[in-house]
Amino acid sequence: MKVTIWNENRHEKKNPAVREVYPDGIHGAIQQFLENEGIQTGTATLDEEEHGLSQEVLDNTDVLIWWGHIAHDEVSDEVVERVRQRVLNGMGLVVLHSGHFSKIFKKLMGTSCDLKWREADEKERLWVVDPSHPIAANIGQYIELPKEEMYGEHFDIPTPDELVFVSWFEGGEVFRSGCTYKRGQGKIFYFRPGHETYPTYHKKEIQQVIVNAVQWAKPAASEKPVYGNAKPLEAIGSK
Amino acid sequence: MKVTIWNENRHEKKNPAVREVYPDGIHGAIQQFLENEGIQTGTATLDEEEHGLSQEVLDNTDVLIWWGHIAHDEVSDEVVERVRQRVLNGMGLVVLHSGHFSKIFKKLMGTSCDLKWREADEKERLWVVDPSHPIAANIGQYIELPKEEMYGEHFDIPTPDELVFVSWFEGGEVFRSGCTYKRGQGKIFYFRPGHETYPTYHKKEIQQVIVNAVQWAKPAASEKPVYGNAKPLEAIGSK
Amino acid sequence: MKVTIWNENRHEKKNPAVREVYPDGIHGAIQQFLENEGIQTGTATLDEEEHGLSQEVLDNTDVLIWWGHIAHDEVSDEVVERVRQRVLNGMGLVVLHSGHFSKIFKKLMGTSCDLKWREADEKERLWVVDPSHPIAANIGQYIELPKEEMYGEHFDIPTPDELVFVSWFEGGEVFRSGCTYKRGQGKIFYFRPGHETYPTYHKKEIQQVIVNAVQWAKPAASEKPVYGNAKPLEAIGSK
Amino acid sequence: MKVTIWNENRHEKKNPAVREVYPDGIHGAIQQFLENEGIQTGTATLDEEEHGLSQEVLDNTDVLIWWGHIAHDEVSDEVVERVRQRVLNGMGLVVLHSGHFSKIFKKLMGTSCDLKWREADEKERLWVVDPSHPIAANIGQYIELPKEEMYGEHFDIPTPDELVFVSWFEGGEVFRSGCTYKRGQGKIFYFRPGHETYPTYHKKEIQQVIVNAVQWAKPAASEKPVYGNAKPLEAIGSK
Repeated sequence: MKVTIWNENRHEKKNPAVREVYPDGIHGAIQQFLENEGIQTGTATLDEEEHGLSQEVLDNTDVLIWWGHIAHDEVSDEVVERVRQRVLNGMGLVVLHSGHFSKIFKKLMGTSCDLKWREADEKERLWVVDPSHPIAANIGQYIELPKEEMYGEHFDIPTPDELVFVSWFEGGEVFRSGCTYKRGQGKIFYFRPGHETYPTYHKKEIQQVIVNAVQWAKPAASEKPVYGNAKPLEAIGSK
Repeated sequence: MKVTIWNENRHEKKNPAVREVYPDGIHGAIQQFLENEGIQTGTATLDEEEHGLSQEVLDNTDVLIWWGHIAHDEVSDEVVERVRQRVLNGMGLVVLHSGHFSKIFKKLMGTSCDLKWREADEKERLWVVDPSHPIAANIGQYIELPKEEMYGEHFDIPTPDELVFVSWFEGGEVFRSGCTYKRGQGKIFYFRPGHETYPTYHKKEIQQVIVNAVQWAKPAASEKPVYGNAKPLEAIGSK
Repeated sequence: MKVTIWNENRHEKKNPAVREVYPDGIHGAIQQFLENEGIQTGTATLDEEEHGLSQEVLDNTDVLIWWGHIAHDEVSDEVVERVRQRVLNGMGLVVLHSGHFSKIFKKLMGTSCDLKWREADEKERLWVVDPSHPIAANIGQYIELPKEEMYGEHFDIPTPDELVFVSWFEGGEVFRSGCTYKRGQGKIFYFRPGHETYPTYHKKEIQQVIVNAVQWAKPAASEKPVYGNAKPLEAIGSK
Repeated sequence: MKVTIWNENRHEKKNPAVREVYPDGIHGAIQQFLENEGIQTGTATLDEEEHGLSQEVLDNTDVLIWWGHIAHDEVSDEVVERVRQRVLNGMGLVVLHSGHFSKIFKKLMGTSCDLKWREADEKERLWVVDPSHPIAANIGQYIELPKEEMYGEHFDIPTPDELVFVSWFEGGEVFRSGCTYKRGQGKIFYFRPGHETYPTYHKKEIQQVIVNAVQWAKPAASEKPVYGNAKPLEAIGSK
């Protein structure tokens, strides 16, 4: 399995406070803990040619992780459509935090993907509501983050195929924080936490969820469906 | 449409504090606001013969509301099975609060229906996560209850067909508070709030949800499916 | 409630055989039976200005019905996005037959919406698999169409929120023929039958399903969610 | 992983024609192909003490396969409840064919689980409708069985969490043939084919589905949820 971690990588360049938390970028932090689990990885960032997501890179990617925030509009429509086609053909996609507003997630969902938000150093508690789901394996009943950005309902997404986590926030909101979808042959997992100013991706349980999600989202050994004009099967009189 | 409100009606008899909040019983309070909406109602309670749920009563009930808590075990298995058959034949069922542990709900769900709970006068906020659902009509983005009993995840239920409300509690928990199911021809709605010592069923938005749920759960004008040994349809050569 | 019926209306112009089946166009046939039920309707077709779907028309439409086939690409992206925004804001959408490949349906689904097809005058039988769903009210256990175009699985759609009908075809295929979705505040129903050369929309049970779907899809009396930067609720210390 | 295959094993004793198809019993045939895949197995049958399902056997079972037909009523309620508790605690359950009417399946579903049926040597074609599901891995777009018993809709089950297969039958019916559920910590898969007089379990693709299902249904490495009276988390003032 090969995982490609895509990161906008702009906050890290502009903001020393973020660089202090993620000296190798958010993509670097994620790469590190995936490699520690023996998973083969690569990274790609917005400012690379084709945002680092050439057809060849995508063809060699089993699961793509996506983190973006302030520069969603700079991602080219061509690359977005290329990623979408690859998801429909079986590549897994793990969308993190503010990636809810990325072009690729919105295009795959069909909705606005809008939500409430607040930056106020609030405690977040992610409760497991589907404890036998493989994405919830090897963590406890909930994950507590002492400080995070708040995301609140209503979250304008299609009803998730599966709801794995629901977040509680100190300020009074809840959020569907772990949602799975299938689109074409591809599996998608949206996972809420990860504001750039907090060390969320250094936390062990958050890392475990992302490792689990990557394992869950990898392509199945399934036959590609055939579409189009179909000859009749020998339905009648053939027994 | 005819709604029957079933109430255990024991707290009201034993506890003056509950009687003060609900002088006509919880069933009486619910009956009142349903009648105010022009809905025809009846009531039934545990200590009546057959718990007030004779076959005739059930046959004339479109939607049954259920509130029980300390005497689930006193409900006879025969009546529970009678109610279940009526649900499978199309009667709607609205299960309130501690009814999560009633025999009828557990039998229709197949799971333990267990949960976390705490009596600590906590604020509850029920967030609408499915705003176009008819059960969420004519209320705001959330309902706030200044004091309620806490129910927390994990709630051991089958994945709801639809999730309408998620609760936030002051003490740090979340809960899937509004869940729909279909069983046989019957529609089921579980709605969390309503601890007997709080005036929850006097609150206008809570009343609105129950009115909405009753409208949603009423039997559809559907053909009853036919089961058993089936003659072949003229599938072949009949065009 | 106001229903707008959108039809491509090209087969009717080009093909006398289609015109014979639908002398007033497919939109005219649908309009007729909806009006017979007392539902207020309007029509819109591809060759009208803005395809008949100005902002004003959409703002006054509660449910939009969509039939298209050979000219999906001629529908302007601007109108498609206008329709999508109106769906997200609560307008219902009923997509018929070859509308599975319309720009609007594909954009709301996020997938290819591809399928198998065959034109061979095959018998179709639409089985009700969710008999208490309001869209299945007042029809029998199945609807039989003596001759239809075949659509076969795999149908590349997101998992439906609800699956109401599954079709059987004489030639050996099955198809998820009645699928509901929610996107934003809007309800969507995809309904398979209706190839232009067959009198499918003249059949009483098919008309009943479309009448049911229109009733089901009309906007709910729900509060519009508020999105964006949120002030903290008085979560703490306010009781 | 340890799989226990439970079989009623009555047809095999009474009917020479069945014994010819399954000389080692249906359980023996299933055991053989699971063992060929390197999966550790055991068997249990109705006429053994406690039907071969002592607490010890269940505690050492990761996934239980269930085939029953003519003697559902002879399975003791005590053993059924023991199996149910083990499922709720995480054991996987694969229910085959006429097991739809077993006490254990009905108790976990809450519905009648009734259906249409016909014994007429009909062709069945199981279409994959969820091609990226792990249970559909390594089979083609559909599985064709030249002769099987027909099961037809409406199938009175709760809406499946996931629908993997839909069957087409020569005589004109369809059926939701591959359905997943979660109950408590346990995963459940219902798989339709396998009438005792046909060599269905000798067919390679059917074996592949059962192997896939067993892998899918094995317990997750999840934390057991804690239920009951909960102390308050340090929600306030602790950051």
